[in-house]
Amino acid sequence: MSIVLLTDYGNAEGYAGVLKGVIHRISPETPVLDLTHEIAPFDIIQGGFVLYQAYRYFPRGTIFVAVVDPGVGSERKPLLVQTENYYFIGPDNGLFTLVLHQEKVERIVHLTNPKYHLKSPSSTFHGRDIFAPAAAHLANSTVLENFGEELGTYQRLSEFSPRVGDKEILGTVISVDRFGNAVTNLTRALLAERFPDLSFSVKVGKRSVKEMKTHYAEGAPKKPILLFGNSNLLEISVNQGSAAEILGVKKGDEVKIKL
Amino acid sequence: MSIVLLTDYGNAEGYAGVLKGVIHRISPETPVLDLTHEIAPFDIIQGGFVLYQAYRYFPRGTIFVAVVDPGVGSERKPLLVQTENYYFIGPDNGLFTLVLHQEKVERIVHLTNPKYHLKSPSSTFHGRDIFAPAAAHLANSTVLENFGEELGTYQRLSEFSPRVGDKEILGTVISVDRFGNAVTNLTRALLAERFPDLSFSVKVGKRSVKEMKTHYAEGAPKKPILLFGNSNLLEISVNQGSAAEILGVKKGDEVKIKL
Amino acid sequence: MSIVLLTDYGNAEGYAGVLKGVIHRISPETPVLDLTHEIAPFDIIQGGFVLYQAYRYFPRGTIFVAVVDPGVGSERKPLLVQTENYYFIGPDNGLFTLVLHQEKVERIVHLTNPKYHLKSPSSTFHGRDIFAPAAAHLANSTVLENFGEELGTYQRLSEFSPRVGDKEILGTVISVDRFGNAVTNLTRALLAERFPDLSFSVKVGKRSVKEMKTHYAEGAPKKPILLFGNSNLLEISVNQGSAAEILGVKKGDEVKIKL
Repeated sequence: MSIVLLTDYGNAEGYAGVLKGVIHRISPETPVLDLTHEIAPFDIIQGGFVLYQAYRYFPRGTIFVAVVDPGVGSERKPLLVQTENYYFIGPDNGLFTLVLHQEKVERIVHLTNPKYHLKSPSSTFHGRDIFAPAAAHLANSTVLENFGEELGTYQRLSEFSPRVGDKEILGTVISVDRFGNAVTNLTRALLAERFPDLSFSVKVGKRSVKEMKTHYAEGAPKKPILLFGNSNLLEISVNQGSAAEILGVKKGDEVKIKL
Repeated sequence: MSIVLLTDYGNAEGYAGVLKGVIHRISPETPVLDLTHEIAPFDIIQGGFVLYQAYRYFPRGTIFVAVVDPGVGSERKPLLVQTENYYFIGPDNGLFTLVLHQEKVERIVHLTNPKYHLKSPSSTFHGRDIFAPAAAHLANSTVLENFGEELGTYQRLSEFSPRVGDKEILGTVISVDRFGNAVTNLTRALLAERFPDLSFSVKVGKRSVKEMKTHYAEGAPKKPILLFGNSNLLEISVNQGSAAEILGVKKGDEVKIKL
Repeated sequence: MSIVLLTDYGNAEGYAGVLKGVIHRISPETPVLDLTHEIAPFDIIQGGFVLYQAYRYFPRGTIFVAVVDPGVGSERKPLLVQTENYYFIGPDNGLFTLVLHQEKVERIVHLTNPKYHLKSPSSTFHGRDIFAPAAAHLANSTVLENFGEELGTYQRLSEFSPRVGDKEILGTVISVDRFGNAVTNLTRALLAERFPDLSFSVKVGKRSVKEMKTHYAEGAPKKPILLFGNSNLLEISVNQGSAAEILGVKKGDEVKIKL
């Protein structure tokens, strides 16, 4: 069983390294892998999206520690969620919306037992003081009951769900990657249901994009294309260029498809 | 026992990866963890601060390789410092001032024995040629005497020590993190001694900040607050905003508290 | 045996983390190390250079997965190259030119066998779907024959080779590192052959640099110097400053040495 970390701590200040130290101290044999520490500060949407895109490629039983946590130290709850295949540990602020849409949730635990926190936890660094220790103790086979009381539900974020109306589908750009690909929250499944041949036109800002391709290299230079990327979400892309720049599109922008 | 790396090499050019290769070759079973490779180039203050903030969370016996080394190839000495709990390997340029203030130093060794260097070491890359091999041989249980002669002292940097006068305490911003928190060199212990109720006013540039909070989320939007952060150092922060930006404060700036 | 990763995926979006998940799932015991994921997007030259600079420091038998792959999904072949000492897995686009100049190539395999791909591989993410699985299966001792048919040759990039004329040597800046050092494709061996005392003048843009030093700290402030860096390639450097900035030199620029 290994522990996989996703945070917005950055790689510069050693905070991510501290999580590894804490885990290593409690559970010296457990491998710790970095998924990323470069989620934009406080960006729950980006964090939830990156986790969603990646988690299923890890082995069953993997423990994910995900910390994008603008409300650290306030009322939001520290959680441990067990699904059919994985464990997710982090703040209850919507970060897990997308993955828990996909995974069968089996148990949600509120991490209240101080026995599994670092001594005198700070109110500013729950990653170190609550989440990393919980992951390490879980890897050491601590039973879920011990961590705290069970909860009936968890926070969800509406930004992750497209709105399907009578006349159009309204989606959102949930991520612009470093290649300039604009990834939307529109799944292949949703679109294939309405457009069995996957032929449709997407309105982004003032422009429309309708050329559907299967790989980036098929696009003509500077010409925006559509494709379903790594996680079967609709992307707007430009072969060897930045779709985001060419179309002036950014995260949070609306995309529209007429029905 | 594991080896933890902190450098200013960045993650882009593979230099940090090379350290792992060198260690892996000499001591294949030893886990190597990245604390950070994103210390600003040549920034010994930032390097020393990040190391200080993180090291105590790692298990006893951890070997730290810390390389922020503007004087590489010059007269500055390559060191191995054994403390009561840890080992620190790197250049003798003040990088270890803060951690060695905290830790009980047991032995300081000058890494002169060529047997534990890579063959024909370069004068530009001691991380690869001297420090990483020393860490790997140490993990392989090489005794300290073998690495070189013992030294009586090590370099200290004055930037890490606040000045306490009759009328005021003068501190320094030693780090601005990616969230814009300005971390000073003023410890909770130092301030609690003078102000048992932790009620005081900090002058930063032209402004004064005096609202002491216990977590970031307690601050009103855009309003600078004081708090003791992850390492019990006084920070100036803004809830969900950048204190550094709002106050125009940067690393190296002076902060003043009237006595 | 461990697997070492080099990509242009960046650390922000979790793609690099996904490679680790895929490998971990197929070969749970194999250590996976990051060389770097910060190669500039699509920059085969930088990727090939960083790999060249680093690979020889890893133990014999190391499996390198290198993915800088602007042509993903097009006709370029996915490769596994076995040399006398290492394995290299990645796209056949010239990325391996420099390392394979150095290493004795023993076998080149075209990764066509779908048994060793992820199920229904995407056309946009061969790192995840083809290269990472190949590395993990190789670490599990799958024999090379099983991965696909043998090939007779591989793509080479001309940018890595200096041109030696009657009157001058023409080289290229193949990398500017974060310290501002400009690394050329001119090896110490090539230059020592023509200039046994290593005394020559290098023309970069409008300026000439001729002071040869052995370490950075020997240079006078702001004064460009020559030295042979970490991999015996000629560098133009400035002590505690950026040669690239001071000389206005960037990657791809020509350097000239009169014969």
